[in-house]
Amino acid sequence: MRRVAVVGADMTHFGKYLDRSLKDLGREAVEGALASAGIDKSKLQVAVVGNAAAGLVTGQEMVRAEVILGDMGIGGIPMINTENACASSSTAFHLAWLYIASGMYDLALVLGVEKLYHQDKKRSFAAIGAAVDVEMAEKAVAIASADRKAAGDSATAGAGESRSLFMDLYAAIARNHMRRYGTTKEQYARVAEKNHFYGSLNAHAQYRERYTVEEILASPPVADPLTRLMCSPIGDGAAAIILCSEEKARQFTTKPLWVRASVLTTHQEHGADEPGLGDRVAAMAYEMADLGPQDVSLAELHDATAAAELVLYEEMGFCPRGEGGRFIDDGEADLGGRIPVNTSGGLIAKGHPIGATGTAQLYEIFLQLRGEAGERQVSGAKVGLTENGGGMVGNENIVASVHILSL
Amino acid sequence: MRRVAVVGADMTHFGKYLDRSLKDLGREAVEGALASAGIDKSKLQVAVVGNAAAGLVTGQEMVRAEVILGDMGIGGIPMINTENACASSSTAFHLAWLYIASGMYDLALVLGVEKLYHQDKKRSFAAIGAAVDVEMAEKAVAIASADRKAAGDSATAGAGESRSLFMDLYAAIARNHMRRYGTTKEQYARVAEKNHFYGSLNAHAQYRERYTVEEILASPPVADPLTRLMCSPIGDGAAAIILCSEEKARQFTTKPLWVRASVLTTHQEHGADEPGLGDRVAAMAYEMADLGPQDVSLAELHDATAAAELVLYEEMGFCPRGEGGRFIDDGEADLGGRIPVNTSGGLIAKGHPIGATGTAQLYEIFLQLRGEAGERQVSGAKVGLTENGGGMVGNENIVASVHILSL
Repeated sequence: MRRVAVVGADMTHFGKYLDRSLKDLGREAVEGALASAGIDKSKLQVAVVGNAAAGLVTGQEMVRAEVILGDMGIGGIPMINTENACASSSTAFHLAWLYIASGMYDLALVLGVEKLYHQDKKRSFAAIGAAVDVEMAEKAVAIASADRKAAGDSATAGAGESRSLFMDLYAAIARNHMRRYGTTKEQYARVAEKNHFYGSLNAHAQYRERYTVEEILASPPVADPLTRLMCSPIGDGAAAIILCSEEKARQFTTKPLWVRASVLTTHQEHGADEPGLGDRVAAMAYEMADLGPQDVSLAELHDATAAAELVLYEEMGFCPRGEGGRFIDDGEADLGGRIPVNTSGGLIAKGHPIGATGTAQLYEIFLQLRGEAGERQVSGAKVGLTENGGGMVGNENIVASVHILSL
Repeated sequence: MRRVAVVGADMTHFGKYLDRSLKDLGREAVEGALASAGIDKSKLQVAVVGNAAAGLVTGQEMVRAEVILGDMGIGGIPMINTENACASSSTAFHLAWLYIASGMYDLALVLGVEKLYHQDKKRSFAAIGAAVDVEMAEKAVAIASADRKAAGDSATAGAGESRSLFMDLYAAIARNHMRRYGTTKEQYARVAEKNHFYGSLNAHAQYRERYTVEEILASPPVADPLTRLMCSPIGDGAAAIILCSEEKARQFTTKPLWVRASVLTTHQEHGADEPGLGDRVAAMAYEMADLGPQDVSLAELHDATAAAELVLYEEMGFCPRGEGGRFIDDGEADLGGRIPVNTSGGLIAKGHPIGATGTAQLYEIFLQLRGEAGERQVSGAKVGLTENGGGMVGNENIVASVHILSL
């Protein structure tokens, strides 16, 4: 397998764009990524597009890449349409990496793009509900609801049933960590405070307000212990990346970044004390990269909720099991901390147009490793890690992907 | 890139299964393919699932592979969900091939699965409509309809608007070939006659009746010159394939088949006399395989309609441009002919559950090259080719894939 370089990347602002199409968002990100790499679109040899829900939101199923890229004059090359719920565009990046690592092609485009907002809000939330086994969804709602009642939570999610299902599942994970390790609501609120702060420094972020821990705790309850300001919003947006073989990379940039690990795996049944999906995917990535958590300069972790991020500190090996709360309390994830996490603002503040999230995480690592992250720059950043999870089965994601990039 | 072997394959009967789920159909094909290879599911290292329309038919978007395979206890491995309209599972096969050719994994599962029938027929036809640029669909209907009126055709498709759009586009291709090369309706009917005959020999086929040319011409008009018996039906089904690295293949079989070419490409704008998608994809495949059309023992070609198959004889280089009519008249595509085409019955008789079609084509080549095709066996078959196209833009597919397998 050959070494693969990242030579260009860009993203749109994330937000609510009722008047912009998938094509329009995709074009902006792709043109930006091509420009950042100094590459003409005619040089692309393969394109992989990650999108999770267009079939259910805009009706565009089956040939999303061809329609979006064809509209901007890209064609005559292999195009892959792929989806893996919230990990759709990490999956796309992984496939593009594979095309180049294999020696088959030298230059690949990855696009993550999503339009979740729709005039009919029900359609947006119903689409998100397809990230679970739809035949089992009713059962999952019942289980999560029973667990919530047992926890004495009477809050109702205002955002629709599917949203409620996901946040119920994430809330159950949050409560479990509290019971098991004494983690507090305040610690979850600190994670959200940090991400909202980082978001305030990112011009691409959907939400740029700063909030105190008190304001976050006082925001409307979603599912105990999660409040609205601890949860990722829905949104629209796109992020694109250009990948290149080692031998061609120097043609395009003096600052190539190297893909040290590209790992994708899925849930499997396991006992409560056996390694879960997050532990497994991290171990695989560190082995592939021949690096460990001690080498990581910064990370973008899948903070669908603040609690999910805190659990990921442990699963990624940034701190021992059960010490995620201390990791946030000690400022380890802050700028100047040991491993700044979600300097982009994360899903919570930057936004979470699901099929665009994976490539947007990688875009933040791209900026940081090139020293182009402005006010939120992590000084001396050499190695960046992304964790992108998708779907839910029981109390973990169905699919997870970890990428490690380095100078 | 390493040599890749096909070591197992199976498919369900294609048909109308209102009472069977995606999981149920997928399980049958996967269990059959594993059994045919003598491999336990725990040995699989990666799985790629092609499905075109579940998001729009069953509501299962985003994590189709994880849901279908997870239900049968397969997990903990990378799973890719991919779609490319009617070429979805050829795309899946191509990605699985890439995983093994690259050296990353040794054993891969490919599943193509589709459920198009739904209690609400409108939903089925609306789903098929997503294989075009949905924003442009109205325009395409208008163009095709104008062309049809100019041709004096007053037939209306009974099958719903989306169906009508596709068949209108295919009918325009058929009329163009008639104008340009003098091809006749009878020649299209002969293609259908042949495929219905082959279908009668295939226990997995959705339709097993034989029809005469006269009966085919007299069947209800769809869009001039196409009649119902010249068009592929909608249907449900699944087909699965096991791919393996050369070094492991001998563990599983004494009869490995080799993937000589795995090519995927997309439409690009071109002049009327410049090579179109079909010509390009064939040329790429022959170059990759270091073989030519004269080496092909049999082929499965994407006969969405009889006219499409006739045009593909020429695009695949089986006969010169404009001589597709003569190719069928001379019996070249029959058993005993130079290159038997669609011995499975093709999309027209075997059926066309769109996301399962590519792997089902490959399953037929698998049977034929192993000498296990029974009454429809092509004697001495050594090299098999599949062409699988998807979506429509103007007068050609948006995406096409050609695979060449050999002993």
